[in-house]
Order: sequence, then structure tokens, then C-alpha cells
Amino acid sequence: MTETRIWTAALLVIGDEILSGRTQDRNVAQVALWLNLQGIRLVEVRVVPDVEAVIVDAVHALTAKADYLFTTGGIGPTHDDITVDAIAVALGVPVVVHPQARAVLEDYYASRGGLNEARLRMARVPEGADLIENRMSGAPGIRHGNIFIMAGVPHIAGMMLEALSGQLEGGRPLLSRTVGCMVPESEIADTLRETERDHAACQIGSYPFFRDGRVGANFVVRSTEQDALDACAEDLVARLAEVGHVATDGGI
Amino acid sequence: MTETRIWTAALLVIGDEILSGRTQDRNVAQVALWLNLQGIRLVEVRVVPDVEAVIVDAVHALTAKADYLFTTGGIGPTHDDITVDAIAVALGVPVVVHPQARAVLEDYYASRGGLNEARLRMARVPEGADLIENRMSGAPGIRHGNIFIMAGVPHIAGMMLEALSGQLEGGRPLLSRTVGCMVPESEIADTLRETERDHAACQIGSYPFFRDGRVGANFVVRSTEQDALDACAEDLVARLAEVGHVATDGGI
Repeated sequence: MTETRIWTAALLVIGDEILSGRTQDRNVAQVALWLNLQGIRLVEVRVVPDVEAVIVDAVHALTAKADYLFTTGGIGPTHDDITVDAIAVALGVPVVVHPQARAVLEDYYASRGGLNEARLRMARVPEGADLIENRMSGAPGIRHGNIFIMAGVPHIAGMMLEALSGQLEGGRPLLSRTVGCMVPESEIADTLRETERDHAACQIGSYPFFRDGRVGANFVVRSTEQDALDACAEDLVARLAEVGHVATDGGI
Repeated sequence: MTETRIWTAALLVIGDEILSGRTQDRNVAQVALWLNLQGIRLVEVRVVPDVEAVIVDAVHALTAKADYLFTTGGIGPTHDDITVDAIAVALGVPVVVHPQARAVLEDYYASRGGLNEARLRMARVPEGADLIENRMSGAPGIRHGNIFIMAGVPHIAGMMLEALSGQLEGGRPLLSRTVGCMVPESEIADTLRETERDHAACQIGSYPFFRDGRVGANFVVRSTEQDALDACAEDLVARLAEVGHVATDGGI
């Protein structure tokens, strides 16, 4: 087995609306699933308020922990949108108007009342940044080195991710295979632990559920190697059968 | 205006399933909304994997930042449930079997095949802990000082929160009032900023949306003072009218 470098990312979700419970975050799962496909592992998420000093600290901490940092939120036109300023402070660079972003916004707002001062805020970037395309609403995302600054609105963030697909250096994508079983996980905990121990290239997560008054669990096997994944999942099904439980390959 | 102490909380979401994108987190919003009602402000959330050293670091960092720390996830019976062990390490105390938790589990599993070693794992607590009631599935949550260790399954975590309602010292609940308007937020950014500036006890967040091909935004005014909140929201409606926009009190 060749040793493979593991590429890592952190996600910084910026916004009082998430911390107040007003908005249900959708970006963590979306970014995580996209990163899996790029062969990059999401190792930490932080959610912080729209406070510059707090954002700056989080950017410093997370860029030290992971190869890539993604942020969502706080890049709109209003007074509470301070992500660009905070990241510029964290990087120690000034904020500048990006000429291409300005052109994109001029074009987008030509038929929508023109570019005012608030809208021009969305052309501001930390000096040295490139743009991430946003076909949805004009205002682009921003890439500065290994930092990716994206919108908070999930479908706009999703389009920015799409624009970045295949652009980032990553390792092998993380594969998964799910085995489901109508059994309380507490009854087969030993089987899970022993199966994981005997398949070094795999991890097994156990996710219980209640459905129609019955208890069950899905066991998610994860690996970067297809052969190891399949062997582990099939072994788990066999071991569950040995202790009297019929498992469903593919999950329940 | 009397100066009021602001009570703060942090939330640590523990689980590979969130970082892999397999599970959509529901606990951040649930905990945030519950904290608002207790007069406690959620100031930071972190999501970390099922790795002891990472959990220990996060517990140290977050207990230093906030009055209360809540955790969700990793307290089940399987090998990947390591939250109790990690928090015990962070606190520098041993893990012990809590006699009352053991009794609760014995009772719960009496008609479900009995208490085995895996199930007994759910009676383990950091020494010195109290229990948080869980009427749903037997296994209790755990309170150790100002650290609250809860289940990852959202409706079980929700019941544990309910059991804690009114038990924590907090300040005044954060109140909010929403004003909606079918206007691009970039057109009235100045109005928002000036209104917020003139109402020191309030914050205004701007949350744009797209609906039926049109653009609008909800402006959420937040304050711990009802009078200040109402004055700010009404002033915002009046100022929006001055610049030609009909706003809907209560939001859109």
C-alpha cells in the first residue's frame, strides 16, 4: 500500500444568523460532500459571529490547521458584511477594488438600477486575490492563495464550489459503503469494534435511528481504497450474520 | 439603562458524520434557539471529528471563551463514542460509572435483552458529574460543572435541553423583530447602517432571499430590551418608507 498524503480543509461559517438559530446552516454538509469528491478531508468547522477580531483569530487558527480554508457568509453589500475586511486584516494586506469584479457588477446591475456604493462593496477583495465565478447573482467569490471566500446563501455557495471543482490539489476521494441492520447498536458494538480493528484501511461509524417504533442503525464504512472498503463491508455483513442479524448492504 | 452581564455559551459538535457531510446537523440551530430563551448568547460553534486529542483541545479553548459549554454527539455505546473519555481527559479527572445512570440503564434494558458491556459504556461519566434526564432512550446526558454533554440525535438532545430549561443562570433573553421588504438589500444598505447606528441597544442583520423570481430581504432587529427593539423596528419601517419601500412588519 502506498502512503498517500491526506489533504485537509477547514470551514469557517461567518454569521450572527447561524449563532442566533434564525438560519439553519446548509453549507457544512454541502462543503463536506464537495470536499470528499475532491479528495480533501474536512477536519474542522467553526461558526463565528460578524465580529472582526473573532474572524481574524479563527482565520489564523484554521489556516495553521488545514491545507485549505473555506469561508461562507458576510460578503454581501450591507454593513454587517465584514468578511473581506476581516480576512484582509488576518492576511496583513489592504482591501482593494478588484477591476474584474467591478466590471462584473457593473454589467449585472446595468439593468437593475446601476452600481451604487453598497453594491461596489462586493467588488472589494484582499489585495492579491482572484475571483470565483458566481453565475447566480453577479457578486463573485474570492480566492486568496488557499483561502476561499464564498457566499452564505447555500445555492450561491454551491455554484461557487462547482466553479472550483477539480481546481484544487487533493488526494484520493474518500469512499463509503453503508450496511444497515434493524438491531440496537448496543447489541453488536463488539462486532463493529472487532471488524474495524481487522480492517486497518477502513473506519466504521455507527448511526442509530428509530423508525416505525423500531430501533436500527446504519454502519458507514469509509476508506480511500475501494478493495479495502468492499472487503470490510462484506466482512461486516458476514459477522453480523454470525451473531444472528440480517444486514442490508446499501443501508436502511 | 442598567448594564447587564451577558452570559455566553459555546457548542462543540462531535462527530465524523457531520464532517463527512453524511449527516445534516440540526443541533446548532436547536441549541441556539434554546439558549436565546435562557438569556444566554451562543458565541462560537466548533465541529470536530471523533479524535480524542482534538476534542480535548477544543474543550480547553471553548471553556476559556464562554460561560457554558455544550457538546453533542459521541455518547452512545459503540467504539466511536469517545466524548466522555475525551472530556474527562480535558478536565483531568477519571471516568467512573455513575450509579444512577447504571440503574436507569438497567431498568431501560430490562425488557430489551439486559445490560451488556457496550450498554454499560453509557453509564460512564467524568468523575464529579451529574446526569441530565433522557426520557427518550434511557442513556442520560451528563453535566459536569458548566459543561453539558448531550446526545447527537437531535430529538434526544432536544429533550435534554428541555430538562435543563430554566436551570442555568442567564441574562435577559435576546428578543428579535423582523421587518421584510421586497427590495435588493444593496439598494437600502445606507438606511440599514444608519438605523443601526442610531439605535445603540439594537443590532440589525440583513438576510436576502430570492422568491418567485424577485429579490427581497428580511431585516432582523435584535435587542435584549423590548422598548428599544420596538422603537428600532418601527423607525426602520419609517425610514424604508421615506426611500420609497413598503416594509412588512413581521417579515416576509
